[in-house]
Amino acid sequence: MKLILAMIRIDKMAATKLALSDVGLPSFTAMPVLGRGKGKGGFEKAVGLDEDQKELIIEMPRLKSKRMITLVVTDDKKELAVETLIKTNQTGKSGDGKIFILPASDSYRVRTGENGDITLD
Amino acid sequence: MKLILAMIRIDKMAATKLALSDVGLPSFTAMPVLGRGKGKGGFEKAVGLDEDQKELIIEMPRLKSKRMITLVVTDDKKELAVETLIKTNQTGKSGDGKIFILPASDSYRVRTGENGDITLD
Amino acid sequence: MKLILAMIRIDKMAATKLALSDVGLPSFTAMPVLGRGKGKGGFEKAVGLDEDQKELIIEMPRLKSKRMITLVVTDDKKELAVETLIKTNQTGKSGDGKIFILPASDSYRVRTGENGDITLD
Repeated sequence: MKLILAMIRIDKMAATKLALSDVGLPSFTAMPVLGRGKGKGGFEKAVGLDEDQKELIIEMPRLKSKRMITLVVTDDKKELAVETLIKTNQTGKSGDGKIFILPASDSYRVRTGENGDITLD
Repeated sequence: MKLILAMIRIDKMAATKLALSDVGLPSFTAMPVLGRGKGKGGFEKAVGLDEDQKELIIEMPRLKSKRMITLVVTDDKKELAVETLIKTNQTGKSGDGKIFILPASDSYRVRTGENGDITLD
Repeated sequence: MKLILAMIRIDKMAATKLALSDVGLPSFTAMPVLGRGKGKGGFEKAVGLDEDQKELIIEMPRLKSKRMITLVVTDDKKELAVETLIKTNQTGKSGDGKIFILPASDSYRVRTGENGDITLD
């Protein structure tokens, strides 16, 4: 079982919802986040400045609004989920986002109390 | 050590806070999320439609507002946490939510710098 | 590969952004959360009260606004990330927050499709 965290562009949410559903992975959670990668914004400019100057610069909006998607899948669906997320979200430009894979040890469906892979279908 | 992610109904937050505290697990984090399970909303209708029609349909609000709870517990408290979450959130109707268990390798208390199980009491 | 979840004070976000960038870890995601530790607020007062009284008390705002930071690093950068987060966020007062470490099994850069440690630089 794997938990997939994907940080994507806001304007890719609708297409991502549809693409995941189309490949049989309709269950997920989305939340608004602020994020930055290594090369974005003017953030690095603050390094090495005086404390006063840093204060000014770090007040500026530098993190970008993104959506974080959380998706839990059985091990055999991990590749499908990652391929679908990449294909749907890849524009080739900086800011396309990241996908992280975490091992998950169990899943429960609250309605029935059942657990395991069966709760991920 | 386990990290427990629970997606629950908004109107179960107050009862969940209280129930976790009652069993000695008062520490957690909550955040608003949008989520969907396999059978909810009219989302599947979009599959197989023309692109124009999909465009219209995926503009509609289809994800449901939920709360995501994050809770880190020692291994021996995992069953207690899951049972408490299920008992408090189970209505038997679709939309009761999911609980995911992830292995966690460490925890730090920022105030003191200490780490390990002691930071989870 | 490790995923680091840090729950910190809102007014430490700017300093934390800067500190992580200064040590070469500029990539992260932040989101607003509500949280509580073991000793905060008047929450425990609700234990043992009549149902009517509980109802009143749990209506009161008891969770504190925090920021949750998500950061994925290679194993050899985990100590640096944790030390930086503790140093920047430690005031010595209750409410300084927690840091959780989760094993991560992979990371993908959506723009290029590449995966592994190279996507975390």
